[in-house]
Amino acid sequence: MTIDTAARPKTTLDRMWAIEKSKAEPGLWRIETRVPTAGPRDVRIRVTAFAICGTDLHIVDWDRWAASRIKPPLVFGHEFTGIVDSVGAEVTSVAPGDRVTGETHVYCGLCYACRRGLQHLCQQLEILGVDRQGAFADYVVLPEQNVWKLHPSIPEEIAAVHDPLGNAVHTALAGPVAGLRFAVFGCGPIGCFAVGVLKASGAAWVAAVDKNPIRLKLAERMGADLTVNVETDPVVKRILEGTHGRGVDGMLEMSGHPGAFRDGFEVLANGGRVSLLGIPSKPLEIDIAKEVIFRGATVQGINGRLIFDTWYRMESLLLSGKLDVRPVLTHVMGWSDFEEAVGLQRSGKAGKIVLKRDHP
Amino acid sequence: MTIDTAARPKTTLDRMWAIEKSKAEPGLWRIETRVPTAGPRDVRIRVTAFAICGTDLHIVDWDRWAASRIKPPLVFGHEFTGIVDSVGAEVTSVAPGDRVTGETHVYCGLCYACRRGLQHLCQQLEILGVDRQGAFADYVVLPEQNVWKLHPSIPEEIAAVHDPLGNAVHTALAGPVAGLRFAVFGCGPIGCFAVGVLKASGAAWVAAVDKNPIRLKLAERMGADLTVNVETDPVVKRILEGTHGRGVDGMLEMSGHPGAFRDGFEVLANGGRVSLLGIPSKPLEIDIAKEVIFRGATVQGINGRLIFDTWYRMESLLLSGKLDVRPVLTHVMGWSDFEEAVGLQRSGKAGKIVLKRDHP
Amino acid sequence: MTIDTAARPKTTLDRMWAIEKSKAEPGLWRIETRVPTAGPRDVRIRVTAFAICGTDLHIVDWDRWAASRIKPPLVFGHEFTGIVDSVGAEVTSVAPGDRVTGETHVYCGLCYACRRGLQHLCQQLEILGVDRQGAFADYVVLPEQNVWKLHPSIPEEIAAVHDPLGNAVHTALAGPVAGLRFAVFGCGPIGCFAVGVLKASGAAWVAAVDKNPIRLKLAERMGADLTVNVETDPVVKRILEGTHGRGVDGMLEMSGHPGAFRDGFEVLANGGRVSLLGIPSKPLEIDIAKEVIFRGATVQGINGRLIFDTWYRMESLLLSGKLDVRPVLTHVMGWSDFEEAVGLQRSGKAGKIVLKRDHP
Amino acid sequence: MTIDTAARPKTTLDRMWAIEKSKAEPGLWRIETRVPTAGPRDVRIRVTAFAICGTDLHIVDWDRWAASRIKPPLVFGHEFTGIVDSVGAEVTSVAPGDRVTGETHVYCGLCYACRRGLQHLCQQLEILGVDRQGAFADYVVLPEQNVWKLHPSIPEEIAAVHDPLGNAVHTALAGPVAGLRFAVFGCGPIGCFAVGVLKASGAAWVAAVDKNPIRLKLAERMGADLTVNVETDPVVKRILEGTHGRGVDGMLEMSGHPGAFRDGFEVLANGGRVSLLGIPSKPLEIDIAKEVIFRGATVQGINGRLIFDTWYRMESLLLSGKLDVRPVLTHVMGWSDFEEAVGLQRSGKAGKIVLKRDHP
Repeated sequence: MTIDTAARPKTTLDRMWAIEKSKAEPGLWRIETRVPTAGPRDVRIRVTAFAICGTDLHIVDWDRWAASRIKPPLVFGHEFTGIVDSVGAEVTSVAPGDRVTGETHVYCGLCYACRRGLQHLCQQLEILGVDRQGAFADYVVLPEQNVWKLHPSIPEEIAAVHDPLGNAVHTALAGPVAGLRFAVFGCGPIGCFAVGVLKASGAAWVAAVDKNPIRLKLAERMGADLTVNVETDPVVKRILEGTHGRGVDGMLEMSGHPGAFRDGFEVLANGGRVSLLGIPSKPLEIDIAKEVIFRGATVQGINGRLIFDTWYRMESLLLSGKLDVRPVLTHVMGWSDFEEAVGLQRSGKAGKIVLKRDHP
Repeated sequence: MTIDTAARPKTTLDRMWAIEKSKAEPGLWRIETRVPTAGPRDVRIRVTAFAICGTDLHIVDWDRWAASRIKPPLVFGHEFTGIVDSVGAEVTSVAPGDRVTGETHVYCGLCYACRRGLQHLCQQLEILGVDRQGAFADYVVLPEQNVWKLHPSIPEEIAAVHDPLGNAVHTALAGPVAGLRFAVFGCGPIGCFAVGVLKASGAAWVAAVDKNPIRLKLAERMGADLTVNVETDPVVKRILEGTHGRGVDGMLEMSGHPGAFRDGFEVLANGGRVSLLGIPSKPLEIDIAKEVIFRGATVQGINGRLIFDTWYRMESLLLSGKLDVRPVLTHVMGWSDFEEAVGLQRSGKAGKIVLKRDHP
Repeated sequence: MTIDTAARPKTTLDRMWAIEKSKAEPGLWRIETRVPTAGPRDVRIRVTAFAICGTDLHIVDWDRWAASRIKPPLVFGHEFTGIVDSVGAEVTSVAPGDRVTGETHVYCGLCYACRRGLQHLCQQLEILGVDRQGAFADYVVLPEQNVWKLHPSIPEEIAAVHDPLGNAVHTALAGPVAGLRFAVFGCGPIGCFAVGVLKASGAAWVAAVDKNPIRLKLAERMGADLTVNVETDPVVKRILEGTHGRGVDGMLEMSGHPGAFRDGFEVLANGGRVSLLGIPSKPLEIDIAKEVIFRGATVQGINGRLIFDTWYRMESLLLSGKLDVRPVLTHVMGWSDFEEAVGLQRSGKAGKIVLKRDHP
Repeated sequence: MTIDTAARPKTTLDRMWAIEKSKAEPGLWRIETRVPTAGPRDVRIRVTAFAICGTDLHIVDWDRWAASRIKPPLVFGHEFTGIVDSVGAEVTSVAPGDRVTGETHVYCGLCYACRRGLQHLCQQLEILGVDRQGAFADYVVLPEQNVWKLHPSIPEEIAAVHDPLGNAVHTALAGPVAGLRFAVFGCGPIGCFAVGVLKASGAAWVAAVDKNPIRLKLAERMGADLTVNVETDPVVKRILEGTHGRGVDGMLEMSGHPGAFRDGFEVLANGGRVSLLGIPSKPLEIDIAKEVIFRGATVQGINGRLIFDTWYRMESLLLSGKLDVRPVLTHVMGWSDFEEAVGLQRSGKAGKIVLKRDHP
């Protein structure tokens, strides 16, 4: 990783600090760049805190996916919160000074998917910080339709992680939950969030599976009834025991790991649902006959968040006190600690790291 | 109410104690009668505890509904638990000594409704203690298909109320709950149970409405975020305030009272669901255009329990500790206190009264 | 009905012909008025044909509903088709010359309903020709988000009735249809359309109910397997016979008539669905216990059209040849025949009347 | 294939003709064996016609699946129709002389799956002619709960194929159909049936894909709007052209072929459904990220038939005339032609072959 440490915060009227993928190679660059301008239907937000997603690590590392998708130079980052700085002439729903965050799937509103209520699957989808200038910066611009006004009781560090928390809410609530049993494969931040959402939504029993003891501990703090370490425990056996041989009613895949696909179907009760959010790095072999057909399984591809059904339900779960995600927010750091935060995230020793603005 | 107090427990090999509607007139009769016999697919259960339902009060009072439906002599009662005493030759899923309760909707399994998975709406439905000999007795007989084997951790007093608790679970879980807002009209035992089920299932906010302060207190103990007394509080105003003007996503009607239909729709958000369990005593006037059509409401008639989907989810909610119904179980009495229990239930000063066997 | 027949077509650059409710009293007025101007996100359409809805008759008659909702002066009318005349600066999905019609529910896109995909139930809903200037005119303006571009194979007279046809598609497809039995109460144009949509969608059997023999004939031409005249036939008996005693799986209410609510529930199989589109003129008495609860019915309030899911499915049904609505389009007239068309519509002797532009 | 041609029909009071897998090796044996006896809840049926399924060919061939599942000696065959010969003492819904066929998934009724309405996914499932004595015989026994009484208007050759036709109905109706576009991969009899069910249910457009021109012709006769030969046509290109680039709303997989999984996802619109019935012979590689997750697809494992929801809808589609399956029933032969029929089925030159009883 090559890091240009020369750039320092010196936000002026039209210049700002940002973290950029400047070249098509591994590394990240702290830069000074123009403050983005907003069109008539856009909202410009002064970012106050952001968080680092696994996607951002792929961009820093410049892996196969990043190289095929990202067009440098690009300010990246999409998990953020801030204060509305200015709004376009036609914007009516928010005003300067409002605390906001945003839905990062910028949708066209006019394609076949959008016009049937599937905006999160828009055929012209642009993802913030991936396909358009992102949020690791003093300012970020979003269309009004993507801006989410925060309730005053939502703390800043939680506001900064609404995007991944929304992934967890979308996945967990993609079918009935109350009085049912679940297994969550992968205990990164979204997996841990999902454990919390399931338990808040009446899941009777939730198993959490990972290989990292620190993450399993976080899942336990989020309410997991059983944690299983894939490196030391027989996953299928433990989950079948925990469900008295009945298996789970739902499996949430948050790891992208082939082993999770193998074990996850194995513990699924007939007629159960499988909700896939974790992105496998390559095609996987699946025993369709045994795992999907004879089991009568329903397998759902989950992407983004329902706009804004997921957001309303997420907000309500948070405000009601049903869902407390603070155990997952293991570190709060400053923007000047960006590289350190990246390293910490990579180490697997952190849950979610929130970085707060530490320059004027 | 005419009560024959002469009969005393003297269960012999083939004689048993029971509470009967002996004549087509108000009153109840304690009798001694033959122990019922079980066919090859039946299970005979030695009752250990039972509870009194509103339906039982109608039978005692011999109101219009009872007079049109009940054919005396009839041992009534349908909320119960007990121990399997004997099983028919073809019964395989339970054995003498098993702790059980039962689904009181005895279905044919062969009609159009049953054969499409709607056994609770069977066209030849026989309800225990209404259309066939009931459970206020030393012994009760049910077909194997209706018997529910209890988990060892379910206490007897909760086992005795699985029927009304199942009504609440069925009603509450008839649509999405997590992260949504609800109003429950009617805080009798089922209404109070429903408040608990909603909260256990991730409801973000639940208002409970009744005129009886004791019942409202129970609803509060079950987790209601707002209690509204229809006799002293402006119901619509209070609920709209509590939902910041947005209204509730779901309304559960557990009272059968006309006012609940009026106010309940009024506080419903567009596109919301209305789940009707409470039985109005006569036809009601409804402003279909305003309340149902322009609101885009979905109104569900709820009856019985899904067989056995509701039961599995109820059991799981109880065993997980998510749902604690004990605040509603305000009194435990003995079978010899039956008339006193009827009076107490009628007084509105009790939640659910469980009566335990107090003779050998 | 007072009609001002003085106005004649003399569309100039900025003046146009229109039908207006000019005063708060019965009647309609042909006027000359300013051509409406379009904002940056709007589309101005040169109307080429329109149709008269029951709502328009209420407006002409100035009944209780009209008097409470309409603010004169108002150009009314909302069933139309035309050619894009000009578009605002931000419009991208249509261009001058495109053949279009439009979704008449103009939604805000920002309220709780809209943001969860229920735009047709928008809390700030403005209906074209009811709450804002309508389509009985040379030109009409709609926001881009409401404009529907027509496939070249859709004929003009069918394009002009997409609004009511969409009501029928929304109502009919609000639940499973294929291999099920239905009753449609009310055989006005939407009821007749609904019969056609049900049959095109695999309904195994459809009964159509009305008191008007002409309309029943149209329903039969749209594919009804049984037509029942409420004035001469025993509705419940005929439908139960036709379903071999089983009842219908779904009931579509398109009349608003109290008798339909009474008979419609009576013929519904347990667990059936009731989809309500017809607007009763006043509150109705319903036996909730018997008709909704014990039957386990699901009653849906249907309003408008799903935006645009209903539209895509409507278009596909039309283009595939599955759905042929021409039998319902009994008359094609000219704009100069407007009053005659109103009279004909009122007489009950017409299905849908399409009026084509007959001045330059 | 080893065939013992010695056995000839000589049904006596307790002896009958049957086709058996007598030994754990390739081949089929015509045998004389005892007429099966029926328990108190069973129905004995005198078979009048049956049909050969792909599963039967696997059993004859003694492939890997057959060797692992079948325990010889076994009378196989499960697609059949006949006349009730005798019924057990407790049977009430059918009587000797009734024309019937049967649901071949014999379920326990007491497991977790069965008790939640998923009998077709019973955990103790026994399939007729696979796990218990089958229908290629003079008589077959089924539990009353599995017997389906035929409407007098259903012809015998269609009655004999209710099992595979039910697979097609279950798969096609596992989601919305009317006004939507579909692709069916695999045009064996079930695939061809599915094309017919989709079209009868309002599908706006259906593409059928296979490599066999005879089967593609049958699909066309069942209503396919486009047929694509995988060996000569570019599948993805043709289907995208046919849907104007939009892709299909649903994909039905009836072939089990890896290529269908590859192409089928490729032509799926975002948010579409994939219904899998065809059994792949081994695990398949799937690009989960691209095909399922980013597409927001829902993938359903389909097995058997919904008991009896599928059956009622199948019957209604047939009786209404909406669904005509006769083009698929290419051959009617006699039981004495069994080996010839097996060969014909194998050749790919037949649709479905129905074999009628040709001995007394």
